[in-house]
Amino acid sequence: MADLGEHEVLRRLHQFCDSVVGDDGAIQSLPAGERLVVTTDVLVDGVHFCDRTLPPNALGWRAAAVNLSDLAAMGATPMGLTIGLTLPADTPWPWLGELYQGITDCLQHHGGAIIGGDLCRGEHRSLAITALGSVQPHQALYRNRAQPGQTLVTTGAHGASRAGLALLLGELAPELDPHNGPDDQSWIQAHQRPVPRFDAISILRQLSPEGTATIAAMDTSDGLADAIVQICTQSQVGATLFSSQLPLPSGLGNRVGSATAQNWSLYGGEDFELVLSLPSDMARDFIKRLPGSRVVGQTTLEPGIRLVDDVPQAPDVWLSHTQGYRHFA
Amino acid sequence: MADLGEHEVLRRLHQFCDSVVGDDGAIQSLPAGERLVVTTDVLVDGVHFCDRTLPPNALGWRAAAVNLSDLAAMGATPMGLTIGLTLPADTPWPWLGELYQGITDCLQHHGGAIIGGDLCRGEHRSLAITALGSVQPHQALYRNRAQPGQTLVTTGAHGASRAGLALLLGELAPELDPHNGPDDQSWIQAHQRPVPRFDAISILRQLSPEGTATIAAMDTSDGLADAIVQICTQSQVGATLFSSQLPLPSGLGNRVGSATAQNWSLYGGEDFELVLSLPSDMARDFIKRLPGSRVVGQTTLEPGIRLVDDVPQAPDVWLSHTQGYRHFA
Repeated sequence: MADLGEHEVLRRLHQFCDSVVGDDGAIQSLPAGERLVVTTDVLVDGVHFCDRTLPPNALGWRAAAVNLSDLAAMGATPMGLTIGLTLPADTPWPWLGELYQGITDCLQHHGGAIIGGDLCRGEHRSLAITALGSVQPHQALYRNRAQPGQTLVTTGAHGASRAGLALLLGELAPELDPHNGPDDQSWIQAHQRPVPRFDAISILRQLSPEGTATIAAMDTSDGLADAIVQICTQSQVGATLFSSQLPLPSGLGNRVGSATAQNWSLYGGEDFELVLSLPSDMARDFIKRLPGSRVVGQTTLEPGIRLVDDVPQAPDVWLSHTQGYRHFA
Repeated sequence: MADLGEHEVLRRLHQFCDSVVGDDGAIQSLPAGERLVVTTDVLVDGVHFCDRTLPPNALGWRAAAVNLSDLAAMGATPMGLTIGLTLPADTPWPWLGELYQGITDCLQHHGGAIIGGDLCRGEHRSLAITALGSVQPHQALYRNRAQPGQTLVTTGAHGASRAGLALLLGELAPELDPHNGPDDQSWIQAHQRPVPRFDAISILRQLSPEGTATIAAMDTSDGLADAIVQICTQSQVGATLFSSQLPLPSGLGNRVGSATAQNWSLYGGEDFELVLSLPSDMARDFIKRLPGSRVVGQTTLEPGIRLVDDVPQAPDVWLSHTQGYRHFA
């Protein structure tokens, strides 16, 4: 990029942008009566990604999806992203072009446009993305709205992203049997191209036209256990989960053993599904309409999140989010 | 911070935030009929700041001010900031606390609140800030609205921030004469605590109640010359400047010589003043009402930005923004 010069790099990047670029800020309209939803995520090379696990196109997709997933968790519709990028001066243009292509691909699938950004020279690569969305006030989703006796539902399997990472890092050997090989691809896909669950939000809006006052939601970026603990703690309820109901990806237990599969499902993180606490009849309708969604437990009046084992004599386990991913651990 | 743990660090940071924190995104209202203005800046340790030039409190102020200045250049009123922060795990808490205090101080003076963020471990310190503001559509300011025959006005002196940096880096020796010493402090202040010029925007709104269709504006983050070149290029006009009218900080010529003073004034950058292209009668009223503001030249029908020297025989100089700060140079 040093050879191209800043103006040429910016000119190329502007081709990915929807809005007119060339002022100190971008001007956007918010649909009448809607609220703005804002969320930020930073991805750092060596911490959140590396060349081995995420080629630039996948990194771009994932960086956009991570932020869109937060918008989905708030019940919002995407408006756009700003991208604050730090890159070494010797970064080749194709790397940067592929990164922006990946971001654009994700936005074309799920909504929103690149509305601004900043590009800086720095020794280490990092991306700071801020996503903007809009939501009608009565359809906004919060973490603290769960009530005792509700059904905890998740939109998909958990542990697939962790399994994909293990395959990419060589921690898990690839499957040689062609009958089982497809799992590998789907797990790598789960890690590299997570899908923000706006499809779930659209179903939820249809099921609750009067509003979302008794629904709690969060995405599972930091793990399934973390999302359940956060929703329950902030809503001042407890929960009972059953290990038999954990949303394991098909085939994972056979490949890594049931203890590891359970651990990855609860604490692996980065599956970017949603956890919802719903009134039970709504949960039933929701699951009928969203393939792959599952019940993972029930909220309770008693505090604490209890994981009940299938084996009758096994002691219950109490979950805590501190076993999940910790940025400064 | 590694000792405190992520939850304790986040708990402390949340005390600086105005809004309720604890969901996947922050919800904000936009004043009815107004547009959203969005801008992003990334500051990287070793490129945009270092411990020697910016202690954490000043870094926080400056990081906020840089973004607010972009909002001012768009004619917008600040709503809030998101802060994407990358820090080594051994960063002491007081450093981070002071950074947030500096950000908060700037917002308390100039408007807006911290509405979200993300905190990541990384080897190198960087801050990615996205600022949100709001503006009535007819009061928004753009770079491409200048017309030939307008007066180019700037809100203050240029070169002071560069002089402050030179003092902080030891490139310029401190003044020992107590009569001249105050300049040093004001130049360091200009570098460490730039002031976003919302005061100028407020005067501009009073002078143009019917709207800003014939006003162009940009902030001078990348230098006075760059701002003039950008406004003229995007508006398809030229400009004539006179070296005698360059807005030098008082005392700078005596300290560094007139050639260096002129160079710093045109290309030093980071003064975060505004350049405005105004109809001449509005320019006259504006300058009367904003102390420190000055005429720097006139726009012309002929393209090119010509700097006319005071010495009658000296050749004119044609300015180009490529002599300014280049991120990938």
